[in-house]
Formats: sequence, structure tokens, C-alpha cells
Amino acid sequence: MFKKILIANRGEIALRVIRTCREMGIKTVAVYSKADAESLHVRFADEAVCIGPAPSNESYLKIPNIISAAEITNADAIHPGYGFLAENAKFSKICDEHGIKFIGASPEMIERMGDKASARATMMAAGVPCIPGSDGLLKDYKDCLKTAKKMGFPVMLKATAGGGGKGMRAVWKEEDLEAAWDSARQEAGAAFGNNGMYMEKLIEEPRHIEIQVVGDSKGKACHLSERDCSVQRRHQKLTEETPSPFMTDELREKMGEAAVKAAEYIKYEGAGTVEFLVDKHRNFYFMEMNTRIQVEHPITEQVIDYDLIREQILVAAGVEISGKNYFPKLHSIECRINAEDPYNGFRPSPGKITNLHAPGGHGVRIDTHVYSGYSIPPNYDSMIAKLITTAQTREEAIHKMKRALDEFVIEGVKTTIPFHRQLMDHPDYLDGNYTTKFMEDFVMDEKYQDQ
Amino acid sequence: MFKKILIANRGEIALRVIRTCREMGIKTVAVYSKADAESLHVRFADEAVCIGPAPSNESYLKIPNIISAAEITNADAIHPGYGFLAENAKFSKICDEHGIKFIGASPEMIERMGDKASARATMMAAGVPCIPGSDGLLKDYKDCLKTAKKMGFPVMLKATAGGGGKGMRAVWKEEDLEAAWDSARQEAGAAFGNNGMYMEKLIEEPRHIEIQVVGDSKGKACHLSERDCSVQRRHQKLTEETPSPFMTDELREKMGEAAVKAAEYIKYEGAGTVEFLVDKHRNFYFMEMNTRIQVEHPITEQVIDYDLIREQILVAAGVEISGKNYFPKLHSIECRINAEDPYNGFRPSPGKITNLHAPGGHGVRIDTHVYSGYSIPPNYDSMIAKLITTAQTREEAIHKMKRALDEFVIEGVKTTIPFHRQLMDHPDYLDGNYTTKFMEDFVMDEKYQDQ
Repeated sequence: MFKKILIANRGEIALRVIRTCREMGIKTVAVYSKADAESLHVRFADEAVCIGPAPSNESYLKIPNIISAAEITNADAIHPGYGFLAENAKFSKICDEHGIKFIGASPEMIERMGDKASARATMMAAGVPCIPGSDGLLKDYKDCLKTAKKMGFPVMLKATAGGGGKGMRAVWKEEDLEAAWDSARQEAGAAFGNNGMYMEKLIEEPRHIEIQVVGDSKGKACHLSERDCSVQRRHQKLTEETPSPFMTDELREKMGEAAVKAAEYIKYEGAGTVEFLVDKHRNFYFMEMNTRIQVEHPITEQVIDYDLIREQILVAAGVEISGKNYFPKLHSIECRINAEDPYNGFRPSPGKITNLHAPGGHGVRIDTHVYSGYSIPPNYDSMIAKLITTAQTREEAIHKMKRALDEFVIEGVKTTIPFHRQLMDHPDYLDGNYTTKFMEDFVMDEKYQDQ
Repeated sequence: MFKKILIANRGEIALRVIRTCREMGIKTVAVYSKADAESLHVRFADEAVCIGPAPSNESYLKIPNIISAAEITNADAIHPGYGFLAENAKFSKICDEHGIKFIGASPEMIERMGDKASARATMMAAGVPCIPGSDGLLKDYKDCLKTAKKMGFPVMLKATAGGGGKGMRAVWKEEDLEAAWDSARQEAGAAFGNNGMYMEKLIEEPRHIEIQVVGDSKGKACHLSERDCSVQRRHQKLTEETPSPFMTDELREKMGEAAVKAAEYIKYEGAGTVEFLVDKHRNFYFMEMNTRIQVEHPITEQVIDYDLIREQILVAAGVEISGKNYFPKLHSIECRINAEDPYNGFRPSPGKITNLHAPGGHGVRIDTHVYSGYSIPPNYDSMIAKLITTAQTREEAIHKMKRALDEFVIEGVKTTIPFHRQLMDHPDYLDGNYTTKFMEDFVMDEKYQDQ
């Protein structure tokens, strides 16, 4: 087992990794930028090394500084957390070259799954369903019609030079295809000087549902069921839950099997996430694979009594997994508490936390690196805490989240607490009736402002 | 279901009950003494009523004030928490008379189980093993010998007027009995002017292991397995765990069956605890039954995913239980964080908490009514927080407790954190090898002082 792990990250995830290391009896090294000197991850690590000033490319992204810190402190492994260098093939390779175990994917795996086209080709080869699309550009209308009929309506026509919705058409039935083809090409030509078009299957009422997987060094993999991350704002997840209210036992079986197939096909080692889009008919399509721990991993831990960081470390140290899959026994929800003003376009609100009181009690978990008196630097992601509630049923987990949000006191900065509080009262959320489009017409209600 | 519950208590248990009420959509009324105006239970309740000055018999024990508060606020039930009026038959009766549901035992039940002799007689009638003892005073040495032979050695000779260990003799074999009889009688006569003696079975290496039970209004009961509360100082529990490291499946089966038999025999309604002493041979003997929620109830909740306060409320509202028993799926430990100085005979240390930072993350639960800036009044019990860790194994739960204790910051007052931290390193604790005598020769080590 590793004797000392350097955590090449900051904030709550650095603290999260340190906590598990302590519980496993492994020494820890924190690295930090000058802006993060007062962060809890620095305080709770056994050793801490300053690796540069605040801009990430001068500290948390600066590979030589991090490798030096590992060598100075004699760390035998590096945990990259999420973001920063977690999916950087070069960093993974340099760790290998220095004889430091990178607790994450191999350089080849990161490259393979990090490139969209190569990931898609790999998954198709593995037999995992991908979003059907034309093979490159459509030659003419005849090709367009043939492709559409082959993949089945509805379809999405997209301009290859497109952006901002221009040259894009959703087509629901065959008789509308020709008019859409003509108008989209015209629009694309006028807007971009390029009327090349391709086609994708239109995903109706899409949900973002991901499957957690763990693979070991022997090529064996298992899944740990799903997380529904459909509540997103501009592709930023706001809240996640497991099980998905949209899930059925049959769909979980199928998606779990596909995710395990994907992981085993590429001999994936470590904790990873296979992200799918699921349409209203419960067809599911591979989107991408994240070769790292996810922000939302705690909800999975809560419903299966499993420490995913511990598992990452064990697998990296060569421990084999049993191969059995895990199914949720409870319901868990995570709200990302960001220092942002939800009444002002979720604008970041860094600054000093003048008072903090976290909720507690039955079924409440908090992961945070901040405290009363802590100054949130303006340089990083605005997430300051993850609030997780767990109960026997979804309804109880929501009630628990409401009361926990009501108890949460953060003064001095604006936070997304009022947003989450409003969300937990939203009829569509309560019905589990939400897609990735949910936030498009969400309007903050003043009545939650004093939360 | 109840519309509004008044909580006739203070501190963490008042907050605990408020939290579950909120989650169930039930309004809450806090009552508080003048000394408790700044407590979180007052802040988080929907309504709050001041019921008098600090001395408990002028507020938390003053029945007319509490009944008035319930009537003014139109509460339809009262939850008494633990301590104060929780096992007061008169209070339970007065609630009934006022048409307010008392969420606890009936007056008859409290009287029956509150009186030691009557509780023992009831349990013997129910077929629950009690500590064998002589029928009143021993007439002469012949009677003494006969009694000892009947119950089997070792036995305990006790002076009926005894105290402070005077006139008390442990006797391990028959040939020592007569000398012990003579010397104990002599000593008792000299010390108390009364040489009357009685006899009890000597419990070798006693452990305090209690079984949680829940009974419903139809007379059906179930058990929720055990809690080991053997780490006690002067009969005050310091830390508890479940499962007990001393437990076997067979013993749990037998003790659980005895506890359910006890509850069903008396048609017990609500959550209750049957406390047993268990000797080194795994014989168990009824000690007493608590007809209320216990301080240490969260560890049971953690290992069986159950909200005991919710269950109390449901059962009080007439909901029937399934009758199935619950068995621990995980391991959970609670440390009682008291504002006391463990380096100074656990002397209470009230005062202002100048800084508080609670641990968090995977498997950590905190129940507390205090916060940064809160002044602990000198008038009450010194417990300020319960720190609970839960993991798949006992070893992991202990490691988690260590790291959580290391993260816990409480400044301004002395706390028992260093004691618990030392305990979690103690070889006998780690081996699960402790009895109710454990604390008798426990000495605080200076090295934990900066915790």
C-alpha cells in the first residue's frame, strides 16, 4: 500500500481525499497556491507545499512544480481529484516516468476517451449504443433522406460550421425534411459561408444519466448504478440524485451492462463514469467517459455504503475487485452550494464568509473546505460545499434536503442555497419530471431570497 | 397525523426532534428557559415559548408551564426527549387529561418500569432473565449457603444498609463463604449498626448491552439489535457502539427475543430500551427498561437506515409496525462530546464557544445544538455534541472517528475530545475488550492535550 499520497488539487475534493487517506493510515501531502494558504486541505494534510501563485497555470496546472513537490516530500502516489490535471495524459505519463503512481487512468486511456471521435469509435466497437449520426457530411438531399429513414425520425440537421443554433433544424416527420434541408442550408450558407450539413438522431426529452464503474488491473469491472444529473445550467450540474426517478430495473440492468462492457472492453482501471443521454422512450446513448472521480460521487457512496476514494486507492495499489455490481438501497440527493448569486444570473460571489453554520443530524452529509472566517478566492470554481441528504425514499430525501437547506447559514457571500430551496418545491422536480432542458425557463422566486 | 408537536426539552435532542418533524411536515413548538434563548432548538422551531428561568424545576420540569405552552400554541402532541419529564408518569397522565398526546409511555407503564422492584417482578413473570438474588435478607449462614449453592458461585454478599463498598464481599467458591459472611456482617454492623445481609449473583466482567425495541398500539413489538454502552464513567456513558464487539449472532438472537418478549408482555407502545448486564460467559440479565428515546439512539439509526424519532411519532399516531426485527448492516460509534475537562476529573467547562468547526465527509454525522459564538449555560448537562461515525467494519469506523476527532475544532471551552481521541488508540478498546470497569483505571495521557 502507498505510504504517502500527494493530492494535486484544492478545495473540497482535496480534503475528501485527505480524509480517506487518514482513515487508511496513509500520509498526505497538500499542494496549494498562494491564494489557498488558508484552505482546510492545507491544514488537514500531514505536509503542505506551496506550488505557486493563484492563476492555475502557474500552480495547480504546473506539472513540474507538482512533480517537484512529490519528489521533495517522497510521495509514492498522486491523486489528481477532478478538474485541473485529472484527465491530462501528459501528467499521467510524467508521473509514470518519475515512478510515482498516478491514481487515475493511464495516458493511453485518457487520450482514447478524451478525444470525442476516438471515444465514440471505441464505444461503437465495444457494442455500446452511441447517438446515431451520418457518416460525415450529407452529400445531397437524397443522402439526407436515406440517412434520416435509416436512423428514424425525429432527426436533427446540423450545419458543420454551425453555432448558436444557426443552421440547425429538428425534423419530426419525413414530409417536413425537404423544407428543413433547404432552409437550414440557406441559413448556414448565409451565416457561415458554408452550407455543409450532417445529421444526428434527435434525443427527445434528454436526461443526463451516468453510470459509475470501477475496473481493476486484471481487466475486471463492475458498476455501481446510476446518477441522474439532468438538472444543469449551461452544462454545469447543479444537483444530482440516485436512483434516477426515471430509472427502471430493466433500464438499470441494460445501462449497467453497457457501462461494464465499455469499461472491460478498454480494460479500464480505476473509478470512472460512463455518461449517457436517455430519451423519453428510455433509449440510451453514450456521450462520454470521465476517467476520474466525479464531483457527485458522494450520492453513490451514500446509497451503497461504499467509499469510492478508498476504492480508487486500493485499485491503484493493485487490489482486485470482486466484480459484483452494486444497487441503490436508499435515495440520495446532492446540492452543489456555490458562492454565486442565483438572483443575478448565478454570478460568482467570492469574498469572506463572515458566519457559517452547517446543518447536521440524521441523513445529512456535508463536504466542504470552507469555514467561518474563510475568504473565498476569486480565482477558482465557485463551489464551496456539497450538501447531501440520504433517506429510504426520494420523498424523504427531498424533505430532508429542504430542512437541511433551511438550517444552512452562510453569511458574507451570496450562495445558491435559495435556488436549491426553490428547486425542492418545484412541482416538476417533485414529480421527477425533468430533463437537461429544465433550467432553460427556470425563474428565481423572490420568496426564497432570505434563505 | 399530528399537526403540531411541542418539544418539552432543550439542546441537541430538542433539535433532533424538530428536524424529523420538519421532514414529516409537522409544525413544532420549542419551549426554553431564559438561559437557552440563544439555543438552536429555539431558532429552528416554528414557534418558541419561554417557560421560565434556568433552574430546571422552574422551567423544563414545570408541568403547568409546559401544558400552558402547548395549549396556547394549540399543539396536539408533546415529545419529551430524554431526561426532564420523559419518564414522569404524572406528566404523561396530565398530557392525557388535557387531550394532548404524550409521545412516550403511558403513566402506568412508566410507573411499572420506573420502580426497580416492580420492573424486576414484571420481567421475571415475562420470563426475562434477571440477576438472581436472595428473597430479601438472609436469615443465617445456613440460608446463606443454601442460597449461594442454588444460584451458583461466584456470588456477591451485600449489606442491606451498605454503601461505598462496605459490608460487601465477592465470593468465588464455597470454602470462602463462611469467612466472608462473618467478616461482612461484622463490618456492616460496625459501619451501619445493621448487619442484615442479602445476596446477588456476581456478574463477572460485566458489559452494559442494551436492546432497542419498538412496540405499537396493537401490542406488537420488534427489536432493532443492540448497543454496547460499557464505556462508562460513574454510570455516565461516554461512548457507545453497535454492533457490540462482544456480540455473537446466537446471543443477539437470544437477547433480542428476550427484549421483544419483555415489550410484548407489557404491551409496550413506542420506542424503548431494555438494558442488560452481560457476563463473560455471555449470560445476560435484565437491569432496567427506559421508556423513552436514548441519547445513543443515532448509532442504531445509522446501521439500519431507520429514523427512530419518526418511528416514535408514527407509533404514537397509531401506525402499526411490521413486527420484523432489524439487524446491523454496518458499524457505528458515537462519542459524546461534553464541555468538560478530562484532564481535571471531567469537571464541567461551561462558557462561550469562540470557534467551532465540525468535521464532515463520508460516514460522519453530527448532532449538536451549539455553534460558534454560543455560550454554554452552566445549568444543564454538559453534552454539547454527538459525533457519530459509520463504516462497513468496526476498524474503519474507529479510523473514521479518529480523523473526525482530529478535525473537530471547539475553542473557548474544554471538551472531552482528547479523551475520545486517546480511547480510540487504547489497545483494549481496539480489541473490543472492555467492561463497565474499563474507566476505573483510565489515565489521561498528556499527548492528546492539544486535540
